[in-house]
Amino acid sequence: MSEQEGITVKKSDDFSEWYTQVVQKAELADYAPVQGCMVIRPNGYAIWENIMKTMDQNFKKLGVRNVYFPQFIPESFLKKEAEHFQGFVPECAWVTMGGNTKLGERLAIRPTSETIIYHMFSKWIRSWRDLPLKINQWCNIVRWESATKFFVRTTEFLWQEGHTAHATMKDADKMMMDILKVYQRFIEDYLAIPLLTGKKTDRERFAGALTTTTLEALMPDGRAIQMGTSHNLGQNFSKVFDMKFLDKNEKEGFVWNTSWGVSTRMIGALIMAHGDDKGLLIPPKIAHTHVVIIPIFYKPTERKKVLKKCQDAKKRLENLEIILDDRVEYTPGWKFNEWELKGIPLRIEIGPKDVKKKQVIVVRRDNGKKIVIKESQLNKKIPKILEDIQSSLFNKARKLLRENIRTVKNYEEFKKVLNGKRGFIRACWCGNESCEGKIKDETGATIRTIPFKKEKTFSNCICCNKKAKEVVYFAKAY
Amino acid sequence: MSEQEGITVKKSDDFSEWYTQVVQKAELADYAPVQGCMVIRPNGYAIWENIMKTMDQNFKKLGVRNVYFPQFIPESFLKKEAEHFQGFVPECAWVTMGGNTKLGERLAIRPTSETIIYHMFSKWIRSWRDLPLKINQWCNIVRWESATKFFVRTTEFLWQEGHTAHATMKDADKMMMDILKVYQRFIEDYLAIPLLTGKKTDRERFAGALTTTTLEALMPDGRAIQMGTSHNLGQNFSKVFDMKFLDKNEKEGFVWNTSWGVSTRMIGALIMAHGDDKGLLIPPKIAHTHVVIIPIFYKPTERKKVLKKCQDAKKRLENLEIILDDRVEYTPGWKFNEWELKGIPLRIEIGPKDVKKKQVIVVRRDNGKKIVIKESQLNKKIPKILEDIQSSLFNKARKLLRENIRTVKNYEEFKKVLNGKRGFIRACWCGNESCEGKIKDETGATIRTIPFKKEKTFSNCICCNKKAKEVVYFAKAY
Repeated sequence: MSEQEGITVKKSDDFSEWYTQVVQKAELADYAPVQGCMVIRPNGYAIWENIMKTMDQNFKKLGVRNVYFPQFIPESFLKKEAEHFQGFVPECAWVTMGGNTKLGERLAIRPTSETIIYHMFSKWIRSWRDLPLKINQWCNIVRWESATKFFVRTTEFLWQEGHTAHATMKDADKMMMDILKVYQRFIEDYLAIPLLTGKKTDRERFAGALTTTTLEALMPDGRAIQMGTSHNLGQNFSKVFDMKFLDKNEKEGFVWNTSWGVSTRMIGALIMAHGDDKGLLIPPKIAHTHVVIIPIFYKPTERKKVLKKCQDAKKRLENLEIILDDRVEYTPGWKFNEWELKGIPLRIEIGPKDVKKKQVIVVRRDNGKKIVIKESQLNKKIPKILEDIQSSLFNKARKLLRENIRTVKNYEEFKKVLNGKRGFIRACWCGNESCEGKIKDETGATIRTIPFKKEKTFSNCICCNKKAKEVVYFAKAY
Repeated sequence: MSEQEGITVKKSDDFSEWYTQVVQKAELADYAPVQGCMVIRPNGYAIWENIMKTMDQNFKKLGVRNVYFPQFIPESFLKKEAEHFQGFVPECAWVTMGGNTKLGERLAIRPTSETIIYHMFSKWIRSWRDLPLKINQWCNIVRWESATKFFVRTTEFLWQEGHTAHATMKDADKMMMDILKVYQRFIEDYLAIPLLTGKKTDRERFAGALTTTTLEALMPDGRAIQMGTSHNLGQNFSKVFDMKFLDKNEKEGFVWNTSWGVSTRMIGALIMAHGDDKGLLIPPKIAHTHVVIIPIFYKPTERKKVLKKCQDAKKRLENLEIILDDRVEYTPGWKFNEWELKGIPLRIEIGPKDVKKKQVIVVRRDNGKKIVIKESQLNKKIPKILEDIQSSLFNKARKLLRENIRTVKNYEEFKKVLNGKRGFIRACWCGNESCEGKIKDETGATIRTIPFKKEKTFSNCICCNKKAKEVVYFAKAY
């Protein structure tokens, strides 16, 4: 940070380049010297820490407990569930040597942990008394990638994966939906990103799942991003891994599983959704720093008084996370730019005039507005302004989402939208995987979600023009 | 947990088997289906979560911020610091395939992350303004092992690794010592395990370090266990990774680094130190559950009143973590055994008589003593009893440590102690690595630490009988 350089492209001109600059210049992440990998720097990791803290509390309220499983998965385990294996094996990193010894069986680094976790579940579950079993782990995941897109697509990333076992299909379905709601509440309330939710098609569902539910957001470049998924795995894994239990009548049955996850990819969505030409903008409820206080003085004699007031202000706001930037080697202007680039939601400026008037100047990161606040009102007014920023960000993003859901009645219109502003395309589909595949091959768009509440069809299938089965939401996605 | 079986060996009869049983029966961990690996189960991971929470706060007070670096380290990186490479390469797991592609250069899974972190530091550090740079990561580590000892020695384990860069040797030395103090306070105050601290010999120090400081504990079987280390790496890595900075006079210099870590191994030490023939015993300050409340009733008609009182008691103790075990499928006696096995520090029993007398029965896990407490006194007295358990555990462990430091004046005495009760052996040493190596080869004991405060020699070197340079502490170690 010895040299300072702002973002040199506009978000609206070159979205991809803008994103890369924000990530690097706000010091959220950097390229690592390993293919497809990145380093998450303190400013980026602090967001992840807040995400983990909030979500973890919500998981625990649902009776989920944390664990840690080995990251090494024997190839034979992955192979047990055929569909699962097909889905994940092309992206596995393989360990073939341990020390100087060639391994008898190569080990995948977990691309997801269903197989090793369910192997252990089968050991631990004996009776209905052991159910439901609900566990989660916060860990690293590897899926081999040739290109790097910070946070959105990297060879290694951080996530949580929850895994549960239940006595009935109904219990598993409820768990899947409870988690989806936890995710949705968090993403909308904390990350201020509005969502479309629903089910995935068979083609798009998780390899090995019965049902995949999804949370889909829209980025300002018109592309969708999958924010998280929650699966009912049915008895697919329990039959393969022999997860049996005795019910209250001493009858043996297979358990029903769910699995669910969100990852550091959410940080990528947050950056894209709220950042602007000045840089990052972190929603207050997830920010590691809510307010930066910057002392302003012209003569050395003013310094002491101004700094004293800055410390007072910090004290008054002790329930918030505050940085008092009293570094002498940088000018106030330099600091303004730095903290705007880094996305801190509010700035407080205090100069000699403010000291006299017992006031401070507050500057909002989202709209640049300056507000004069009496010292004595700080602890009342600042939290309200932060709340207002939080809801403004969400409302702005919701407006973007709403304006970018386009209903089309035929393939021509469909393609026109994809060549234009993109966004979500609401269209009728026959339910046939061949149409879904053809559309993807020809346009790159996929069915992001089938709404939970069935919508009334309004045309034939946009692809084959036969009778439509349902209304679905397409998009090009990250 | 459908079937219940207590620990079937005494701690004093077969320490190793006792330990394995406690880990598995208290459901702290289980063997994984991968060589040398284990699964950390919810009861074990909850201890790790509390360790992370407390230590992380202390790191942050020292200005340390968290990050995440890739776990893949190119072989060429490890090779850059020759001593470091020699030290770690024999235990690396190697990734040689990504997807279906054979990699051009094989990747080690981090056995420790100095090399990749310092590669990035050299990119980020330009000037004195960028120093000190203090980062930490909580992550998984792989060091290939043929045998598994739960928590103490496994192929994959969890740890934190801190890495810092400073402008001067003095700053780096202070950082190393500040962290050692954070570790010591935590281990003694929270884990209730007393320590010997000091420096490692050249032979025993971290591969690539200038100075390694260490925290050594004594287990009840007379073996030492290294609880954590903090290193001053000097300029060894900065010269190899070109970590240069311009000082205030625009003069270029190499930075000074420190690195430091503690791991899930601490959980192993906690189990060994405090567990007994009934199972685990978790020190209250690190326990995920402080109190378990067990309702006792003989007739169904009593149930409601008793449960009501249990809920009242839980409410009165809302600042603590409480489990109210109201399961109907288990008897009170079964529950007593279960929670004793799992190490919850206090049990509260409430039966119909207690309801009438407005009292509860409190049973201490550490000494089995029963205490009758008036309902209204609960929130006052329970925290005090927990404090008393915490200090009792520490005092007991300190007594064990003190009684098992034995001063010897010659090699005969030295070997006699090692064949008997073991513990730490305080002896004089000439400072020569050949004596150190000879002793290790012949007895298996190593120099665990050289005290920070030089102790006065009282004999010649126990090995070569030449003039002794210093007093050191030997032990056989885990």
